[in-house]
Amino acid sequence: MDKKPDWMTAEGPPWTKGEAHVVYANPWLKVTEFEAVAPTGKPALYGVVNFQSLAIGVLPLHDDGTVTLVGQHRFPSGAYSWELPEGGAPLGGDPLDSAKRELVEEAGLAARDWRQVLTFELSNSVTDERGVGYLATGLYPASGTPDDTELIRLARVPFREALAAALAGHMTDMITVALLLRAYHMAREGDLPPALTQAML
Amino acid sequence: MDKKPDWMTAEGPPWTKGEAHVVYANPWLKVTEFEAVAPTGKPALYGVVNFQSLAIGVLPLHDDGTVTLVGQHRFPSGAYSWELPEGGAPLGGDPLDSAKRELVEEAGLAARDWRQVLTFELSNSVTDERGVGYLATGLYPASGTPDDTELIRLARVPFREALAAALAGHMTDMITVALLLRAYHMAREGDLPPALTQAML
Repeated sequence: MDKKPDWMTAEGPPWTKGEAHVVYANPWLKVTEFEAVAPTGKPALYGVVNFQSLAIGVLPLHDDGTVTLVGQHRFPSGAYSWELPEGGAPLGGDPLDSAKRELVEEAGLAARDWRQVLTFELSNSVTDERGVGYLATGLYPASGTPDDTELIRLARVPFREALAAALAGHMTDMITVALLLRAYHMAREGDLPPALTQAML
Repeated sequence: MDKKPDWMTAEGPPWTKGEAHVVYANPWLKVTEFEAVAPTGKPALYGVVNFQSLAIGVLPLHDDGTVTLVGQHRFPSGAYSWELPEGGAPLGGDPLDSAKRELVEEAGLAARDWRQVLTFELSNSVTDERGVGYLATGLYPASGTPDDTELIRLARVPFREALAAALAGHMTDMITVALLLRAYHMAREGDLPPALTQAML
């Protein structure tokens, strides 16, 4: 579906942004408070979080139907989290370069085949964070330099087990959940090689 | 899968939070800067965005295999966005009550059957925003009071067309993308009534 469907072309009036005050900034994010006016005409204070990078997620899918997951402690939740390899890409750069770097840094893997399979906004009522998700196949070992704030553990598990863990609420990272579901969709729709589909499902 | 799989039980060391400074707060979010120490031992300034509500998404799936989508202008992106009905639930409350309210407020619908089908963290390296996704079936018209900052348009479209629009990048809201893929998964796995599955696929 290259063209937007017709029902998407009807659009209502926008928000009016109003006066803006930057209230916080660091190298990764900026927070701005706006004296906004809603499409309904109602004045509304609006705090927006701008992200300084694009979110990247990679599903490394091995020929035998397994996936490589990474484990790390997440600062905001204070919890240990198993996820797909993820990271940030510079805005305006080629996100595929960043995806390749994250995969080798976090999972020690390179891939012969890359497909961008998801495009998303993560929390679009409050942030402008956007991201892309990749399916990486034709995997082979590679060595990279780990990020100096990341201490990563690895697990290689059957695709169905990873998907089941996500749907049971044991893996809650949304990029992970969505990419696993997308790979399931591709397998069921015949968008993957038959042998790989059989190994996954 | 009620029990966590064994590979998830291996955990590495945590971040150390260090001194905290609240740098911004409004009724919806709070931003705190921490003088943190990474699991690797490296000092790292960390800005965390705390959300004051739980994200809620609802997939209203009609008996004829169509879904109801809502269109609205999103402030952070400055763009018009077609999505599933979504909103925020008070932390500590029953998110299902909020889901029911959002569905009637935004889509003018009530549902006989509710299933919580997704649990997620939206951007877990920077925020603590969590959310849940529902599948609502057995739909019937209902009337609610719209939120005074929302001007909503409605579209009722075949499930496959909504899913195709999401996968083509025309609908990028992540809760929408993930819930549509989850419903596809449920249909393919036999988790929905056969007549509904047939109407969807």
